[in-house]
Order: sequence, then C-alpha cells, then structure tokens
Amino acid sequence: MALDSTPIRTLDDLFVRTLQDMYYAENQITMALPEMINNAENPMLRQGFVDHFEETRQHVTRLKQVFGILNRQTKGMTCEAIDGILAEAEQVVGDVEDKKVRDVALAISAQAVEHYEISRYGSLIALAAQLGYTQCIPILRQTLDEEKAADRKLTEVSEAEVNRKAA
Amino acid sequence: MALDSTPIRTLDDLFVRTLQDMYYAENQITMALPEMINNAENPMLRQGFVDHFEETRQHVTRLKQVFGILNRQTKGMTCEAIDGILAEAEQVVGDVEDKKVRDVALAISAQAVEHYEISRYGSLIALAAQLGYTQCIPILRQTLDEEKAADRKLTEVSEAEVNRKAA
Repeated sequence: MALDSTPIRTLDDLFVRTLQDMYYAENQITMALPEMINNAENPMLRQGFVDHFEETRQHVTRLKQVFGILNRQTKGMTCEAIDGILAEAEQVVGDVEDKKVRDVALAISAQAVEHYEISRYGSLIALAAQLGYTQCIPILRQTLDEEKAADRKLTEVSEAEVNRKAA
Repeated sequence: MALDSTPIRTLDDLFVRTLQDMYYAENQITMALPEMINNAENPMLRQGFVDHFEETRQHVTRLKQVFGILNRQTKGMTCEAIDGILAEAEQVVGDVEDKKVRDVALAISAQAVEHYEISRYGSLIALAAQLGYTQCIPILRQTLDEEKAADRKLTEVSEAEVNRKAA
C-alpha cells in the first residue's frame, strides 16, 4: 500500500477513493490547461481549451459538492494515471517542431485526458447508483456530458481544421 | 526532449510516435493482465480478462503489421500514460481487502485502460486517414472495435454481477 493510501473495505470506500482521484486529476488538468492554451495555434483549438478550462474549474466545484453531500472532507489523492497522461502530453508536444503538427499533438493529448475522465466519471456514476447516492448522480452526469462534448469537439477540430492545415 | 525521444517534424512522425506509444502500451497491458486474471474472483470478469489477454496479443501483432506496411522497424517507446494508469490500478486493487469490492476495482481500472486505448486508436485512425495510409485503417479499426467491446463488457459485468454482489 502506498504511504498516503487507506484500505478500501467497502464499495463506499472505493467510491470515495475514486472521487479523491478525480479531485486531484481535475486540479492537475486545471494547472496543465494554460500551457495547452499557450501552445495552441489554431483559433478553434485554442478557444476549445479556453472553454474547457472554465468547465474544468466547474468540475472541481462539482466534486466539492459531491464530497459535501457525503459529509466527507474534500481531499485529493495522487493519481498516477493523470500524472502519466499529462507528462506524456508535455513530452510529445515538446518534441513537435512544426506549429500545425503541434496542434494535432495537442488535440490527441487532450483526447487522452478526456477519455480518462469519461472512464472515471462513468465509474463514479455507476457506483453512486449502486450505493443509492441519487443526489450525486446528476452532478456527476453533468460533468461526464461536458467531458464527452469536449472529446467530440476535439475530434471535430482535429479532423476539420488541424489535420487539414498540417497535411 | 526526453533522452529516448526524437523530434516530430511531420504528421507522419506523429503517427509513428503514436504507434510506438501503443506498441509499448499493448506490451505493458499483456504483462499486467495475468495478475488481473489472478485477482479476479467473479467468473465473468475473470473470463473477460482471459479473452482480452488473447485479444491484446493480437493487437500487438496488428501493430507489427502496421509498422510493416509503413516499412518501419517495429519499436516501442515508453508511454508514461499507460505506466501511470497501470501503476494506479495496481495500487488501488492492492488497497482493497474485500474480494468482491476488488472485482469492482479491477473492472474500473480495466476501463481506464480501455479508454486510453480507445482514445489512441481513434487518433491513429484519424491520422492514417489524413495521411492516406488506407491499408492501415481496417487493421487499426478492428482493434478499436475490440477495445470498445471490451469496455462495454466491463460495464455490463460491473453493473450486473460485480456491484450486485459487492453491495
């Protein structure tokens, strides 16, 4: 067991651990997005990142609401998954020399982040349903819907604009 | 730039880098799955992992085919994203004391892996289409379809069987 981890005895413990994981992840994404905004050349991609930065701040707020509903202290727990995804994004984007190819690399990296979040919020909603935490479900679903929309938008931008220019 | 990375100058370079990333990732997943099979208590979950282990070996073979079509040397490149996702899976699963809760944790962790792959294969197919690598597309799409099917199956197992027993 890692130094900062606690035993998971019940589904409720697993739900809280996954919440803590996402709270850490959303905060890391909030810190990573300004650099992605700075690196984006394509105006649609850049605006997409700006919009998603605002959404991500809302996702942090919503996770605090869920902790509140459960009468739990808002707390993050180091999420090696998002750390790895963001580190790799930084490395790949840093290796790109051409600005238009960099936009495609940024979009691809951002989609890996979105898919991680889609997976985790999907699991949180399934666990909340199982545990009868009905108040939490619409809050988590709103975020899940925004992550899915962000992923679709990245596909559109990537295919319609970025790839065309980079080819 | 990391020690083992090369500059990405073109979309083709980005495609090859993403292929190398997935080649490493699929090999890491192949190494992680036996432990997940061993840890799974629920027969449906266990069988799902066994089936996906065989599929993952096929995914490695298909990536070799794609490298072959491009006349490129088959080569992996360290993928910090999958390393992080798998390290976190191992940690969370290791923290679970109850076998039935561990099954849910295993399913959740496996879905994070699937979503990473769905994201990457989606990007590879978009890049292959852009670059005119038409021969590569059906090969990559077959794997993408299998990753999506594995994700759906994990949702079904998790919701129908695992959660019910763990509650």
